[in-house]
Amino acid sequence: MRLFALLLGVALSTPAFAETGYDAWLRYAPIGDLSVKARYDVLPATVVVLGDSVVMEAAREELIRGLRGMLGRTLRVEAGLPKESAVVLGTLSTVKAALPAAGPFPNLAEDGFWIKTVVAGGVPSLVITAANDRGVLYGVFAFLRKVGLGEAVKQLDERQVPYAPIRWTNEWNNLDGSIERGYGGRSIFFEGDNVRSDLGPVRDYARLLASLGINGCTISNVNANPRVITTEFLPQLVRVAEVFRPWGIRLSVAVDFSSPRRIGGLDTFDPLDARVVQWWKDKVDEIYRAVPDFGGIVVKADSEGRLGPSAYGRSHADATNVIARALKPHGGLIFYRGFVYDHKMDWRNLKNDRARAAYDNFKPLDGQFEDNAVIQIKNGPIDFQVREPASPLFGTLEKTNQVVELQITQEYLGQQRHLCYLPPMWKEVLDFDLQAKGAGTPMKALVAGKTFQRPLGGFVGVSNVGRDQNWLGHHLAMANLYGFGRLAWNPDLSARQIAEEWTRLTFSHDKRVVDTIVAMQLGSWRTYENYSGPLGAQTLTDITGPHFGPAVEASERNGWGQWHRADEKGIGMDRTVATGTGFIGQFRPAVAKTYESLKDCPDELLLWMHHVPYTHVLHSGKTVIQHIYDTHYQGAQEAEGFVTQWKSLKGLVDDERYREVLTRLEYQAGHAQVWRDAVSSWFLKTSGIPDANGRAGRFPGRTEAEAMKLDGYEVVDVRPWEAASGSKAVRCAAKQCAASFRYDGEPGWRDLLVQYFDQNNGASHYRLSVASQLVAEWVADDVFPSGRIDAHTSTRRAVTGLALRRGDEVRIEGIPDRGEGAALDYMEIRLSAR
Amino acid sequence: MRLFALLLGVALSTPAFAETGYDAWLRYAPIGDLSVKARYDVLPATVVVLGDSVVMEAAREELIRGLRGMLGRTLRVEAGLPKESAVVLGTLSTVKAALPAAGPFPNLAEDGFWIKTVVAGGVPSLVITAANDRGVLYGVFAFLRKVGLGEAVKQLDERQVPYAPIRWTNEWNNLDGSIERGYGGRSIFFEGDNVRSDLGPVRDYARLLASLGINGCTISNVNANPRVITTEFLPQLVRVAEVFRPWGIRLSVAVDFSSPRRIGGLDTFDPLDARVVQWWKDKVDEIYRAVPDFGGIVVKADSEGRLGPSAYGRSHADATNVIARALKPHGGLIFYRGFVYDHKMDWRNLKNDRARAAYDNFKPLDGQFEDNAVIQIKNGPIDFQVREPASPLFGTLEKTNQVVELQITQEYLGQQRHLCYLPPMWKEVLDFDLQAKGAGTPMKALVAGKTFQRPLGGFVGVSNVGRDQNWLGHHLAMANLYGFGRLAWNPDLSARQIAEEWTRLTFSHDKRVVDTIVAMQLGSWRTYENYSGPLGAQTLTDITGPHFGPAVEASERNGWGQWHRADEKGIGMDRTVATGTGFIGQFRPAVAKTYESLKDCPDELLLWMHHVPYTHVLHSGKTVIQHIYDTHYQGAQEAEGFVTQWKSLKGLVDDERYREVLTRLEYQAGHAQVWRDAVSSWFLKTSGIPDANGRAGRFPGRTEAEAMKLDGYEVVDVRPWEAASGSKAVRCAAKQCAASFRYDGEPGWRDLLVQYFDQNNGASHYRLSVASQLVAEWVADDVFPSGRIDAHTSTRRAVTGLALRRGDEVRIEGIPDRGEGAALDYMEIRLSAR
Repeated sequence: MRLFALLLGVALSTPAFAETGYDAWLRYAPIGDLSVKARYDVLPATVVVLGDSVVMEAAREELIRGLRGMLGRTLRVEAGLPKESAVVLGTLSTVKAALPAAGPFPNLAEDGFWIKTVVAGGVPSLVITAANDRGVLYGVFAFLRKVGLGEAVKQLDERQVPYAPIRWTNEWNNLDGSIERGYGGRSIFFEGDNVRSDLGPVRDYARLLASLGINGCTISNVNANPRVITTEFLPQLVRVAEVFRPWGIRLSVAVDFSSPRRIGGLDTFDPLDARVVQWWKDKVDEIYRAVPDFGGIVVKADSEGRLGPSAYGRSHADATNVIARALKPHGGLIFYRGFVYDHKMDWRNLKNDRARAAYDNFKPLDGQFEDNAVIQIKNGPIDFQVREPASPLFGTLEKTNQVVELQITQEYLGQQRHLCYLPPMWKEVLDFDLQAKGAGTPMKALVAGKTFQRPLGGFVGVSNVGRDQNWLGHHLAMANLYGFGRLAWNPDLSARQIAEEWTRLTFSHDKRVVDTIVAMQLGSWRTYENYSGPLGAQTLTDITGPHFGPAVEASERNGWGQWHRADEKGIGMDRTVATGTGFIGQFRPAVAKTYESLKDCPDELLLWMHHVPYTHVLHSGKTVIQHIYDTHYQGAQEAEGFVTQWKSLKGLVDDERYREVLTRLEYQAGHAQVWRDAVSSWFLKTSGIPDANGRAGRFPGRTEAEAMKLDGYEVVDVRPWEAASGSKAVRCAAKQCAASFRYDGEPGWRDLLVQYFDQNNGASHYRLSVASQLVAEWVADDVFPSGRIDAHTSTRRAVTGLALRRGDEVRIEGIPDRGEGAALDYMEIRLSAR
Repeated sequence: MRLFALLLGVALSTPAFAETGYDAWLRYAPIGDLSVKARYDVLPATVVVLGDSVVMEAAREELIRGLRGMLGRTLRVEAGLPKESAVVLGTLSTVKAALPAAGPFPNLAEDGFWIKTVVAGGVPSLVITAANDRGVLYGVFAFLRKVGLGEAVKQLDERQVPYAPIRWTNEWNNLDGSIERGYGGRSIFFEGDNVRSDLGPVRDYARLLASLGINGCTISNVNANPRVITTEFLPQLVRVAEVFRPWGIRLSVAVDFSSPRRIGGLDTFDPLDARVVQWWKDKVDEIYRAVPDFGGIVVKADSEGRLGPSAYGRSHADATNVIARALKPHGGLIFYRGFVYDHKMDWRNLKNDRARAAYDNFKPLDGQFEDNAVIQIKNGPIDFQVREPASPLFGTLEKTNQVVELQITQEYLGQQRHLCYLPPMWKEVLDFDLQAKGAGTPMKALVAGKTFQRPLGGFVGVSNVGRDQNWLGHHLAMANLYGFGRLAWNPDLSARQIAEEWTRLTFSHDKRVVDTIVAMQLGSWRTYENYSGPLGAQTLTDITGPHFGPAVEASERNGWGQWHRADEKGIGMDRTVATGTGFIGQFRPAVAKTYESLKDCPDELLLWMHHVPYTHVLHSGKTVIQHIYDTHYQGAQEAEGFVTQWKSLKGLVDDERYREVLTRLEYQAGHAQVWRDAVSSWFLKTSGIPDANGRAGRFPGRTEAEAMKLDGYEVVDVRPWEAASGSKAVRCAAKQCAASFRYDGEPGWRDLLVQYFDQNNGASHYRLSVASQLVAEWVADDVFPSGRIDAHTSTRRAVTGLALRRGDEVRIEGIPDRGEGAALDYMEIRLSAR
């Protein structure tokens, strides 16, 4: 009965027409255009699998499912080659034996595939073949993508091989069901310190990953719980591995380096201690007995408080190798994270620089790592900021395997509340020429192991999908998961091509839909940069808090080392060799030369590399300070533009996703203004240099709450001061409070924007009235990552289309709830749009 | 806090963009077309209400809500006439006083309204006025309908008065929460012998009714529970009345005529007994103390087993008047149902005729009823059949108030599983000239009291909405509720105009949407008639059962009197004066003459009026038997056509309603075939006359389950025999069973249709495989009104797009559940559509 239920849920389901986002780009929507549909009349009606494995079975069932959805046809399954035309699925060896006439056969790397239309014995066939089973599965997905994109399939001869062997995701899921830096709900893997009983979403997620060619997944947080590899827990990992297996996904977990002591009963975890060596060997053997295709282990050690080899004066190589050697006989890999730095650095020492850490820690060890060990390096030297240079470590490890760690979850980039399409950013670093072997060695070639002929290398994406119906919390954010997978397979794809593919598969082929969504996606990273932190100054967010809203000084005067060093005179980290931290010297000389030179350093990384006065003139001809003002106003305006663009798609995309995306974009437009105002005000106040365009510090139509007539509300100072307009807010300490003011503008149709604080420790009620007429009421029950009055909780409510008259009393009443004080920042009145 | 929550739910809600059907035609969808939206720039920004009542307040809030939804503008509420342009709401007397310049003022009947653009003192205003508050509310709804339909509002001068004073619905809701003949879920009014605590849906339903001008609602079943007027229950009625009141809906209940004995402590309910007279007076006084605007009482007596005045040898007039006199001082009405007949008639007596009953019972009493009493008469003489003549009683009561009872809930017309738009049917009887005062006295004029100058009269619709999100269970069925209300207000509207209005307000202004849905609606009654029971032979359904699927003989050989008298030779009730029951003689002579004449009687009522041989030739030139075959095949084909028509709207209507309607239409197409086959087979077998077009009794591509290779399945005889193909089905008595056969047709793409029985006493599983390949599985968990293998439960599952090859084994496995035996009728194989 279990199989029965399973099948009901998957293979035979008619495509879910409800557009919840759950099916993502694998909707297999029926092809409505009959002339497009006719292109697939040439397809065989039969499918045959040569060979037998759960992966091949998944490939066959996916082919059937996809064509059933898009064409309304169910392929026949035949056990052997039929006399009629068929789709033939098989590895190269089985296809060569069964259909020798299909040759000559190409050479194919692992996971690569060949889709070929052949005629053998007068019968035409469509062959999808590969070196291994997984490659056949990838070929099927590639073929279905063609159909989904409306491409011709008449005479196919297409060979694809992945750019690199490692294409994994990391999921920072805790065993208690929470996700570190996850914004799409709770874990699909864990709950209550156990693997969840319902692994349906895990199966469906594995299928999404497989469709992109992703072949490994680390399901537990790098800040690891040692329980994950206990003997008691292993049967639960077996369950996940079974669900992953048909989709060619190798299971992996992140482990605590001190496990030998914490769960192993030893009094040490010294990697050179013979008992520790034996313990790791025994543990890994035990894992492989349970999960023979186990993928490997991820380790974060000596970082952000995690224990590591330094406890015993050992090196990262020692730490890596003790586990690597245990894994080697089984074909397992260890990913040792390069994200090692001192988070208690003295900020007063201008020579200190966290950006140097990865290089300083790992470069000296190059050549000391086992061949099945991989150093996992974040794309930039700091931590997934909106703009960073490529990490110089990529360009210097010659005898060590490496992978680049990219972050799909938008930790610093709006946490899926903001639209921020990442492939353009990833492309920029992947294509960046680190000149490791002279010009022409882009970072992607280095991580793929191509430059120095390393056996391993590739791409790791920190995904952190959750149980939200749309996986990541924002429908449009799924383009990042898609884009990561597509780039891991082929980093030569353009960001535009990826966005277009994704939009067609996820939404519609309608030209207006495709053009609009692609344009929004492609512009969104730059927009986010514009209103957060431009010129390489980092994201200017709350570094010691949730990494969400603005908090310009959060990075300063603490040991975390994300300093931008803005003061009254200037801004930027001097990382030059000449006068600064010397970080630039970690790059190969040709690269370093450009960055070292204030003249040659590109504007967008200027403040990353140099400390300059606000009056420094950029290549654009603007001063730094004016650039900061201009980009922040422009970015906020662009965010408002996303709403307009999306609204033009009303009726062209399904209502469900239309509404959900619109809600997020409207929030983003309001929060972009919070960013704009916080950053502009901070720099205006700090630099004392006015905005040449007269905007910063002036807010037409705005009435501060603290300037209103208050009934019960108390004025409070907000920290950081730039998180609230005028640095103050009002909070209700009574059972119910009110704030009011008189409108003194021209009569006419107006929109009223209320800026309030929606904390996560209550659900206040608000009631807005104009001239005693109740015009809106709402509950502040969204969940933002703060229980305080700050820039994380600052939220906008727009009440549009009000007929205001001079002298009208505008009045808002707040009813606090638990820790939330129905706080208000300001109200703003604008002309209504038509 | 209660008011607060209430407001959150209603007045200030931004229009719900989720298209659940709950908002029906009051969606107030934003006007997307800016050129249309511009038409409303002339509207004032302010609204003022002259006077003060909950109805006027509802009118103002509705105006604000509607314009906010459609135009994105919130009108200002002013207490008195402002100096600027305003929408002015008020009764004639208040408007005359405040804005005398708006005159001359028209005379307006109760509930009528006048919408007028006026300029007074140089300030333009839009006046919506009426004789009473309710009329103002109706004027607001009429105005909002104009905006919703995109009509110009620049220079308005529109006066509307209702066609008749009584415009009510009856809700056959039982206090236990069930609904007699309800197909949209459980009661919105009652649960567990009490009024429900959540009256939100009652409020929203009252608003829907008010938008059509409906002014009364009887909330309890005519088969009445005496508890409803007990002292103990009255506070609960008060709660409903409070929710109705702002919408101008008068509350009413149906009472048990034996109440004086059952709840009154008397030993009699003789209407002429002084104690009974006093009891009714006291009870009604008590009701009015609790509900001062109580509407009145509905009584079903001496009918279908209900007790009535016959128990004491009293007349229906005696029964009516005892209650009427109690109601009169309060302005209350009594609706006494004309649906009185003997349901234990001797079917062998060819002179017996249930159709005569209403006339025979009430005609002699004409003139004996109090002025506040109304006889409530079903549109046809029998009981809401698919085709009936107008009841002759309408044409003969001259000194008695009457209303027509129309059935919105589709008791005999597919129970909201089938699309059947009723306004064309209602229009046919309403417009039928009963010649009561010579030519030119259509039934609508009679029921409105116009013909014989009766003070009361009008329309009662049996609605039976439920708690389903879309009220009636089928999105498209809501056009019937809308149509009833619109016709009750103005029966001169055409069925097409109503369908078009409804479609625009409910779905879209897109021409393809409007054209398609209007065409489907307008054709649907005829389609339903085609495959159920044509030529006035009644619906041919299970008269003694749920009135849903076909059961041709259910009406015969029992006392219920819905006989069609079909035998080997012929069919039809001879109701002529000359040789039959004499029913035709109840019509006025000019009408009777047409019906009495076999030559002049219209084809569609032929079998209602006459008994003819199957070979009788119709005006159409066809024989009766060939007409039966032809219409049933045509009707089933038209039902398939609805699916195609609806599919053409994919992407043009919201996905949610698209899917839900599609599911119903696909079911209907399958069930129309059950009807077709049952009726055609029955007449083929009974008459012995073959179908000239060779279809009846021949089923190409069909394999009977009883002819398959059976494994565990047992062959059973089905009752009635025509409910299953070949009169047999197979039922699984084991834990799991299978039925299989070999396909011996040409290879190619085929659809496989499985006809199975989905009973309401279990949820069987089915698994279908072809050549050992599982191609579909499903659970039979829908709820049809039967726990047996019959035509109510016969259901079709279509598995489309299968590549069949000669010799393939087609195999279906069934797993029974509880009382349901995973029964099968047959499988049918067709060419796949492109």
